Amino acid sequence: MARFLKNKTLSMGKAPGELVFIGDKKMEEVSIRLIDYDNEHLTECELRDIKEAARYKESKTVTWINFHGLHDTELIQAVGDSFELHPLTLEDILNTGQQPKLEEHADYVFIVLKMMRYDETTGHVKSEQLSMVLGETFLLTFQERPGDVFEPVRERIRKQKGRIRSCGLDYLTYSLLDTIVDNYFHIVGHLGEKIEDLEEVILENLSKGIATDIYTFKREMNYLRKNVRPVREFVQRLPRLDSDIFHEQTKPFLKDLLDISNQAMDAIDLYRDMLSDQLNIYNTGIGNHLNEIMKFLTIFSAVFIPMTFIAGIYGTNFEYLPELKYHYSYFIFLGFQLLIALTMLGFFKRKRWL
Amino acid sequence: MARFLKNKTLSMGKAPGELVFIGDKKMEEVSIRLIDYDNEHLTECELRDIKEAARYKESKTVTWINFHGLHDTELIQAVGDSFELHPLTLEDILNTGQQPKLEEHADYVFIVLKMMRYDETTGHVKSEQLSMVLGETFLLTFQERPGDVFEPVRERIRKQKGRIRSCGLDYLTYSLLDTIVDNYFHIVGHLGEKIEDLEEVILENLSKGIATDIYTFKREMNYLRKNVRPVREFVQRLPRLDSDIFHEQTKPFLKDLLDISNQAMDAIDLYRDMLSDQLNIYNTGIGNHLNEIMKFLTIFSAVFIPMTFIAGIYGTNFEYLPELKYHYSYFIFLGFQLLIALTMLGFFKRKRWL
Amino acid sequence: MARFLKNKTLSMGKAPGELVFIGDKKMEEVSIRLIDYDNEHLTECELRDIKEAARYKESKTVTWINFHGLHDTELIQAVGDSFELHPLTLEDILNTGQQPKLEEHADYVFIVLKMMRYDETTGHVKSEQLSMVLGETFLLTFQERPGDVFEPVRERIRKQKGRIRSCGLDYLTYSLLDTIVDNYFHIVGHLGEKIEDLEEVILENLSKGIATDIYTFKREMNYLRKNVRPVREFVQRLPRLDSDIFHEQTKPFLKDLLDISNQAMDAIDLYRDMLSDQLNIYNTGIGNHLNEIMKFLTIFSAVFIPMTFIAGIYGTNFEYLPELKYHYSYFIFLGFQLLIALTMLGFFKRKRWL
Amino acid sequence: MARFLKNKTLSMGKAPGELVFIGDKKMEEVSIRLIDYDNEHLTECELRDIKEAARYKESKTVTWINFHGLHDTELIQAVGDSFELHPLTLEDILNTGQQPKLEEHADYVFIVLKMMRYDETTGHVKSEQLSMVLGETFLLTFQERPGDVFEPVRERIRKQKGRIRSCGLDYLTYSLLDTIVDNYFHIVGHLGEKIEDLEEVILENLSKGIATDIYTFKREMNYLRKNVRPVREFVQRLPRLDSDIFHEQTKPFLKDLLDISNQAMDAIDLYRDMLSDQLNIYNTGIGNHLNEIMKFLTIFSAVFIPMTFIAGIYGTNFEYLPELKYHYSYFIFLGFQLLIALTMLGFFKRKRWL
Amino acid sequence: MARFLKNKTLSMGKAPGELVFIGDKKMEEVSIRLIDYDNEHLTECELRDIKEAARYKESKTVTWINFHGLHDTELIQAVGDSFELHPLTLEDILNTGQQPKLEEHADYVFIVLKMMRYDETTGHVKSEQLSMVLGETFLLTFQERPGDVFEPVRERIRKQKGRIRSCGLDYLTYSLLDTIVDNYFHIVGHLGEKIEDLEEVILENLSKGIATDIYTFKREMNYLRKNVRPVREFVQRLPRLDSDIFHEQTKPFLKDLLDISNQAMDAIDLYRDMLSDQLNIYNTGIGNHLNEIMKFLTIFSAVFIPMTFIAGIYGTNFEYLPELKYHYSYFIFLGFQLLIALTMLGFFKRKRWL
Repeated sequence: MARFLKNKTLSMGKAPGELVFIGDKKMEEVSIRLIDYDNEHLTECELRDIKEAARYKESKTVTWINFHGLHDTELIQAVGDSFELHPLTLEDILNTGQQPKLEEHADYVFIVLKMMRYDETTGHVKSEQLSMVLGETFLLTFQERPGDVFEPVRERIRKQKGRIRSCGLDYLTYSLLDTIVDNYFHIVGHLGEKIEDLEEVILENLSKGIATDIYTFKREMNYLRKNVRPVREFVQRLPRLDSDIFHEQTKPFLKDLLDISNQAMDAIDLYRDMLSDQLNIYNTGIGNHLNEIMKFLTIFSAVFIPMTFIAGIYGTNFEYLPELKYHYSYFIFLGFQLLIALTMLGFFKRKRWL
Repeated sequence: MARFLKNKTLSMGKAPGELVFIGDKKMEEVSIRLIDYDNEHLTECELRDIKEAARYKESKTVTWINFHGLHDTELIQAVGDSFELHPLTLEDILNTGQQPKLEEHADYVFIVLKMMRYDETTGHVKSEQLSMVLGETFLLTFQERPGDVFEPVRERIRKQKGRIRSCGLDYLTYSLLDTIVDNYFHIVGHLGEKIEDLEEVILENLSKGIATDIYTFKREMNYLRKNVRPVREFVQRLPRLDSDIFHEQTKPFLKDLLDISNQAMDAIDLYRDMLSDQLNIYNTGIGNHLNEIMKFLTIFSAVFIPMTFIAGIYGTNFEYLPELKYHYSYFIFLGFQLLIALTMLGFFKRKRWL
Repeated sequence: MARFLKNKTLSMGKAPGELVFIGDKKMEEVSIRLIDYDNEHLTECELRDIKEAARYKESKTVTWINFHGLHDTELIQAVGDSFELHPLTLEDILNTGQQPKLEEHADYVFIVLKMMRYDETTGHVKSEQLSMVLGETFLLTFQERPGDVFEPVRERIRKQKGRIRSCGLDYLTYSLLDTIVDNYFHIVGHLGEKIEDLEEVILENLSKGIATDIYTFKREMNYLRKNVRPVREFVQRLPRLDSDIFHEQTKPFLKDLLDISNQAMDAIDLYRDMLSDQLNIYNTGIGNHLNEIMKFLTIFSAVFIPMTFIAGIYGTNFEYLPELKYHYSYFIFLGFQLLIALTMLGFFKRKRWL
Repeated sequence: MARFLKNKTLSMGKAPGELVFIGDKKMEEVSIRLIDYDNEHLTECELRDIKEAARYKESKTVTWINFHGLHDTELIQAVGDSFELHPLTLEDILNTGQQPKLEEHADYVFIVLKMMRYDETTGHVKSEQLSMVLGETFLLTFQERPGDVFEPVRERIRKQKGRIRSCGLDYLTYSLLDTIVDNYFHIVGHLGEKIEDLEEVILENLSKGIATDIYTFKREMNYLRKNVRPVREFVQRLPRLDSDIFHEQTKPFLKDLLDISNQAMDAIDLYRDMLSDQLNIYNTGIGNHLNEIMKFLTIFSAVFIPMTFIAGIYGTNFEYLPELKYHYSYFIFLGFQLLIALTMLGFFKRKRWL
Repeated sequence: MARFLKNKTLSMGKAPGELVFIGDKKMEEVSIRLIDYDNEHLTECELRDIKEAARYKESKTVTWINFHGLHDTELIQAVGDSFELHPLTLEDILNTGQQPKLEEHADYVFIVLKMMRYDETTGHVKSEQLSMVLGETFLLTFQERPGDVFEPVRERIRKQKGRIRSCGLDYLTYSLLDTIVDNYFHIVGHLGEKIEDLEEVILENLSKGIATDIYTFKREMNYLRKNVRPVREFVQRLPRLDSDIFHEQTKPFLKDLLDISNQAMDAIDLYRDMLSDQLNIYNTGIGNHLNEIMKFLTIFSAVFIPMTFIAGIYGTNFEYLPELKYHYSYFIFLGFQLLIALTMLGFFKRKRWL
């Protein structure tokens, strides 16, 4: 399946809003994890049935329900019914080929973005879709597979570290987004170091592998760019949403989040430029190398060709060829050859080809 | 006829608004197909005469009249008279070289766009013009030839599947547009897979055919881009039209339609970039190949040229050439040649040309 | 004289507004042609003196006065006096190096644009400046030379064809502009066909002529672009002019005119991209060709160089060279040469150079 | 000193507003020239002391004081005191590395721009900074050296030619700007002609000099662009200044000035594109040339290499080499060589390399 | 560590707002320097404890506290407490990988930018982060290491030079920014001169080093651009800040600051273009050089190859080879060889390869 475009063929011809899971099934059973807290209380448990969530939803505490696994369309439908989500929101949650976006609905804000990680073995940046539904009193997060980058946030909640327990739902949302964007930054930095390392190899080594490396990095950078740019754009919109989900005191943090997103984007663009330059250096290197080879061949041929020709003359079988008779002819001949060789080398030295 | 520009010569000198069919006549007779429905009733029939449509036009039911074939200018004129269309709208319907656009008129909205399909044999994306006239109670669609991608929509209408029967004309329009844009997406994905496949071939194979393939894909992508971009632009305008044809409850669907258009455009741009990269890889490959060939030639010549020269020396017929007399001269000579060959090879090894 | 920049040297140092004709004098005598009509009457005649125009100017009929030839600065001054034109307008009419533009004055709208035609012999797009002064009751048009593309419009006026006689001055202006823009479209299409034809030649033929052709087309496209783009821009402004010269009922036609201008511009940009691609294909072709030549040379040399060397060894005159004595030496020698040749060819086959 | 960036090192560490002359001292003594006129009177004289200017300043006549030479910082300070100029204005007048700009101050408008001339010997566009201070009743102009392009304007003032004497200070300012911009236009045209001439040479001649020429022209065009673009921008702002220095009747002239600036900028961009194309043609030419050379070498070698090899065979000293004995061997041998040569040539002809 | 991206790994997983120093510890102990002045008094001293600053903070005099060294997070926290800074501001001060930016807070304006210097030995532009907190009565500046470019400003304060002592905090801020931006300008000019020098070398010398130099300069220019562009942007915003920190009389100076920033950016862009051109010239040079080498090889081979072949013919051992018998054969043979050489050279001369 094309990596850059999830195939929508499955859903073609179906009525819009009908639920189909588009993606690879990455786990057996969907797990639902609830964290509910305020400044004083904390509940953390695994839910068997989405209906259990109902009573947390209404309470004023911060309710965060996280879903691992998306292939159970019936469950997602049930979630949609309990939390009154628009059918198209559900469709988007299930379609893992979404581009990052933020949508304001009457009762909730819907956010789609990608969690990324760098796979050292394949050299590819892998992504997993994360959908967030941010209601007035609850936050739903949907992930494709178990394991995420949110553990430090959960730890901060459990240990009442920082201001997370005393701030509301918006701060939790910010913390999750911050963790993801920090992770983008980290991946860009990791790739960036490899790219900067390439810089030094490139002038020595003109193997085909280098060019392939450059193009691989370029593609990964493009892939990052495609997924980070829309995030930056909606982070920019966050403080100006119609709904007043984000409180005034959280806004400086959103500003900070935007700064990091901007830095990540700037770094991506910088590395893309650097890769272009590297490609040009590589191509210039190939040109230079060809010149060097040709120079060698030319000099080598030019020195020997006339010498071989002269040897050829004295290899002819003319009956009357006076030079052949003299006693020192051979040594004069050898001396003359040497003279030719030195003249040629001198000529090339003057031409600065040597 | 130029593929990228339909010739307007036929209409030159004619008064504006005079009807001329510009395009290839693709079928014998124009067929007119009517579907009229509301939540409870459904009429589907072939019309002989456009006048029959009059009574459906006035009723409050959803009326969809589809025309296959455009070459009958008199019929189009009659349609224009019955539905009070502006002469320039009729002219645009008949000119199949239109670019996609949306025009708001006092009583109707006029949409022109392209239905596309990928012709596997020629490798070309073929397009057919679709004109839509969206009035308050009727939708007219004009196609160049029989056969379209709307069958699933008709099926949904017939079987009362999804919300199509309970929603109005705007939802029908949305459904048709959705089908077309989904199809764009599908074609981009199909071409995209071929492009991604090329990636692996390109490093092995430097045949001229590869470059031609890349350019062909590039041209098709440009062709898609030219036709998809204006669609995305008018889809963006749909929810903000002056006329209140699109109801509030349809707007989330239009938003979804815009998302898909955006994804299609993004994918097109991504593949265009990928093709540019592939071209560069190809050209780098050619440079590398030339280097490899030249290296081989240089090494080969450089090893044999001096050896041939020395053989030439002992082929001369000087009367006094002392080395020729010694008994082991020949074997020393052979050994010396071997030494030269090894020295040269060692030299190239040190230069890393080997 | 530079083709892309009419020399203004003549007017340097002169006071602004002083009249100087800048351009080539393309005809002997200036001709003044008047067409005056309304729904019922039509007058068409040649004027001897611009003063004759005075009474038509005041009447409510549509008055169109066309000037062929611009070198008679006194006449232009007289026109300026009769119709109360600003001195800078007169200066612009006389300077044929103007870029297309639209200027709103208190009493009239001043339009400058280019009529173009494709000269098949030189392969150049030739242009002629057309200035239009659109007052409340009169339209003045100034051309550099006799002959224009307006004959069909005149014909429509004479024969009362279409709506031209029943509509006012604004519709006449639109009709003239439409004719000119249609003509742009036609020229782009004509060049476009030649460019699309080139596509097929380019892969076979790497003669220098092809590159020159591509650059010629590119320059012509740039020339067209330079002259069409500002037209599109002022066509876009036409319906929003301060003066109410353009009536509501003419506006759909202006919209149509804008559509055609947009299509022409899009086609120009498309063909420019196509030409860039063709150039790249051409350059890739040159690279490929060089590779092919080098491969041939390398293979050829590599096969014969060692064989020639071995022949050289047995051409030496060593007294003791045992192989020379054996009876079948020569045939073994020939066989060995053949073996070398086949080995080399096999080697190249394995390297896929053959 | 870097040509594209005047060194500000001299002023580093100094307090802002402290006066330092940055530039080359181009004349011995500063000269101050006053022209004072209205419709009836005209005074033109050389001033010894800036204090003499005081009485002209207050009068309602048009007062134009021109300074040649800037190195006398005390004088400039005195001017600043008399005419109440802001210290930063004075600093800008003295720093000849300014970019063109327009600044509105409470009592005056400050304009900086470059007068340019093309130095035929070096092929460089040379520039001289002109600063204009436009007060309500006076115009101060500061030039670096004697000699300018304003003589025709002075002539028009003296001879009461055109409308200059009857119009006010704003028209004088316009006239000076017009002269400068006309001059830009002239220089662009002059360089443009040279560039268009290059077009014809480029296909014949691949000497290194051509490439250098192209880059030289490109740099000069960039230099022009850098200095003309900001002029165009402030010319565009002139009619909309807060201060009402420019009267309604001068505005059409400012519009005309903008047109010329636009034409100059368009021409610059056009020539830049043309130069890029020329570079590409040149590089394509180099590629073609290399191909031609390689083809020749390959054909030549390929014809002679096998012939030389066969001659080598019959030069071997095998005792039993039957062909050597036959009487016509030599002639058969020569015939065979000819056959090989013809075969090779035929082969290349079929490959279209010949 | 990647130069273009400071690693944020240290702060990952930590709660936002928690203080971590990101950067290299560049000095042992943090030094705090206070300058407090108004028109009449001046206090300059080293502070041991940030609490000492409290009383200066409240006074109406201009208070400038400068910190050298950032690694003491506790101190920074104490500063934050005394001056009521937002935790994210403190975090930004400590993270030396920030991009230049300006943030408006309720009580202060926070500015981050880079001080740069050119390291002649490595050829790199080095940067040090400078954070400024501009309150109503105090200015805090944070630097990474001792030594800065502000000494001339301090000198002006001490010596009451210029208007600095009589103007307020805003003028001090402007003076510091001016010094930094002037320094950017100086670095660009310094690199610019090296780049302009390269221009002359580039046509003579095609060593690989030149290409590396060009890319090095390009990278440094990009690095400068990345750090100067945001400065220009916030300088543009300075006069329009919500807070009225900047008085009306300081605004012309801010305008001047913007001019210099613009000139620096323009110069950077100009030099980037120049470097691109140089790269193209270099690559064209390589192409030309290859052509020259190939021409030489071709001519040389083409002259000797047929001569060697003919020598080979007369080296054959055919029994009946009539030419060998004639007495003058050898001399005719030599003459013929000469004739061939001259013919070939003539041929190349006609082809203009010589």
